[in-house]
Amino acid sequence: MAEERPLQIGLAGLGNVGLGVYRNLARNRELLRERNGRDMEIRRVVVRDLAKPREITFPEGMLSGRLDDLIEDDEIDIVVELIGGIDEALDFVTRAIGKGKTVVTANKALLALHGKDLFALAEERGTMIYFEAAVAGGIPIIKTVQESLVGNNIQSIIGIINGTSNYILTRMAKEGLSYEEALEEARKLGYAEADPSLDVNGGDAAHKAVILASLSYGSWVPFDQVHVEGIERLGKVDLQFARDLGYTVKLLAVIKLIDGDRIEVRVQPSLIPSTHILASVNGVFNAILVRGDVVGETLFYGRGAGQDPTSSSVISDLADAATASCRCGFVPHGLYGKPLPQEESVSQYYLRLQVADQPGVLAQVAGILGRAGVGILSMIQREAGEGEGAPIVVMLHDAKYGVVRRAVAEIAELPCVHHEPVLMRVERLD
Amino acid sequence: MAEERPLQIGLAGLGNVGLGVYRNLARNRELLRERNGRDMEIRRVVVRDLAKPREITFPEGMLSGRLDDLIEDDEIDIVVELIGGIDEALDFVTRAIGKGKTVVTANKALLALHGKDLFALAEERGTMIYFEAAVAGGIPIIKTVQESLVGNNIQSIIGIINGTSNYILTRMAKEGLSYEEALEEARKLGYAEADPSLDVNGGDAAHKAVILASLSYGSWVPFDQVHVEGIERLGKVDLQFARDLGYTVKLLAVIKLIDGDRIEVRVQPSLIPSTHILASVNGVFNAILVRGDVVGETLFYGRGAGQDPTSSSVISDLADAATASCRCGFVPHGLYGKPLPQEESVSQYYLRLQVADQPGVLAQVAGILGRAGVGILSMIQREAGEGEGAPIVVMLHDAKYGVVRRAVAEIAELPCVHHEPVLMRVERLD
Repeated sequence: MAEERPLQIGLAGLGNVGLGVYRNLARNRELLRERNGRDMEIRRVVVRDLAKPREITFPEGMLSGRLDDLIEDDEIDIVVELIGGIDEALDFVTRAIGKGKTVVTANKALLALHGKDLFALAEERGTMIYFEAAVAGGIPIIKTVQESLVGNNIQSIIGIINGTSNYILTRMAKEGLSYEEALEEARKLGYAEADPSLDVNGGDAAHKAVILASLSYGSWVPFDQVHVEGIERLGKVDLQFARDLGYTVKLLAVIKLIDGDRIEVRVQPSLIPSTHILASVNGVFNAILVRGDVVGETLFYGRGAGQDPTSSSVISDLADAATASCRCGFVPHGLYGKPLPQEESVSQYYLRLQVADQPGVLAQVAGILGRAGVGILSMIQREAGEGEGAPIVVMLHDAKYGVVRRAVAEIAELPCVHHEPVLMRVERLD
Repeated sequence: MAEERPLQIGLAGLGNVGLGVYRNLARNRELLRERNGRDMEIRRVVVRDLAKPREITFPEGMLSGRLDDLIEDDEIDIVVELIGGIDEALDFVTRAIGKGKTVVTANKALLALHGKDLFALAEERGTMIYFEAAVAGGIPIIKTVQESLVGNNIQSIIGIINGTSNYILTRMAKEGLSYEEALEEARKLGYAEADPSLDVNGGDAAHKAVILASLSYGSWVPFDQVHVEGIERLGKVDLQFARDLGYTVKLLAVIKLIDGDRIEVRVQPSLIPSTHILASVNGVFNAILVRGDVVGETLFYGRGAGQDPTSSSVISDLADAATASCRCGFVPHGLYGKPLPQEESVSQYYLRLQVADQPGVLAQVAGILGRAGVGILSMIQREAGEGEGAPIVVMLHDAKYGVVRRAVAEIAELPCVHHEPVLMRVERLD
């Protein structure tokens, strides 16, 4: 077989991940050529600011300030979209697909919001979108769900898929830091961005959950049907109570097939048993527990962000593209059902209240729960702290979220309850 | 696009895994067709004993007692080799490849011993061998190493890849069972075969290690160059000492790139820190820690054996074959170096001796180690039990295995030392 010409890559974006892709492709180029039987080379790199000083010296003419330079260059086989954001990336990817180019992207927000249209367009134009790097950085969860578990009905996917929040929760739990202290520490270490909103409010995890759910169940889950809560309102007292009860608090993305035809997708801080392997996923690490009807329980663990881990996934996408060896893209099918409304979703709950240190409080709380038909598994009351009232933790029996939410809203209105109650699910992992 | 005819499968072997493949393919056939865009069907099943009563009723004419019926049938695209063993499987696979058929196999021993020749033959005949099920059951570690981590120099692979021994070690550690009691329990639960030798003596894990090492480093590691020790000689006292020292004992398959050009492959019971995520892999579960120069640390966890998990991997191979979408097979290259002789391999060690309860014993032991240049990190002596002498555990500094082995052989000759000493590595996981 005559040697094919090297695959020509156009790299859009030279931030953290873009730089990693450039460097690591160069570093392991010979190994990749041996393994793939085909060479790859970066033909052009588009940057936002051409004048910015850079650590690497690029060959003459490689850098450009125009995304159009990638689209218009017929020699470029693949564009790698690492510019982030939505609008500009959507326009760029749409036009690249329109020109028949293969697309590799790490943009989870783009796919969560516009995946349905982009994959349909790629199908129509006979090209491919690869996106291993869009979910969980260096963990090959996309290929695993698309290929390795292809013979499985996916029963559930439960993931710790935001490293920033996991770092914060780990530090709060292990060092007794407050949320603010842990966030500040994450910022200093470069684990949290200047604006960490999407990381701590669950939005980033929800983008990834939409992608995993859609791949698993063969139809795009609308982003606005995902129930999302972040970790901003958790106190270190919650992590301590959880630990004393034998649990660890994690921000979980939960995707579950309920009764064979309803799909539940939600992101929430949740309690899991401290003895479960997911509970030992600490710091910025990610892990994803996938349960299939054939394979049973599997878990995939690694770094969910960062220059090198994410570029490892981008490079594996490039290799798949170079060798045309991947059942990628999105295959719609209608074998599963509709999203389950969050209000219908059943689990146990952890409820923390800060209450006035006066008689009759417990009776009022228990009365509301009792009238709602929500059973109480256990209750812990601690002595009042300074000025904040006494913390009470009530562990609730299995109940529908809608019922619990309404009862908790009623409890929050009680004059003896200070602060907004903290409600977390106890996630069943078996 | 006109619908292709269903991929025609010939199944050789209807033991535990074969039955799982047959059942699960039937169960999820529609889902597989939707996802793959191509249907698959089992055309013929070869069994050892046609007269044996079976749980499933097969269509008229599907069962056969002759492997040749699969080879000679030109309609069969893929043969799935699940007969196990070496000689008959080698003959069957060789002839199937000779006829240009695609092969799917779960036979780790066959590949560890004959992989080099089989892959060369497949290359020559323009066909493929798929073998996801040969290593770690339902965990997609083959595809991960071949495809997802393709952009990485593999720095190390450390795996718990024999479920039987992990079950035994878990029960010894958690319940204080003796080796014999735990093995008996494993037998009763169906986790150990009537003859468990290959599981407990490390042979099975070594077969898998050869496959992983060869894939990672692009040249076949000769099986006889793998250092293999099993768990048969461990006492529950070893698991207790390890725990008291902050370690957990696991049968580890270790593959490491040393100094950039030597490859170390060994299977041994080893001590790992109890806080490490690998230490929480219990019972029959498998886990594989892979470190790549780009991706960093990743871990893959799941059931390493059993009808359903293993058939999940066989089915993913069939789907890859159906859609011709896999960079499978073995790609030889010469970018890495030669096997590291075990004698040169450096680590810390755990050494347990049963010694006579008399003065001067420690001085003799310490003297031998000192003359060999092996430093002592710490030492624990317990009171003598009944008739067995007193156990002493010595933790040794980093040293070459050859040096330590010779010193321990000398210690074993001391009149005050009863029983063969137990020597285990302390595995560095960072």
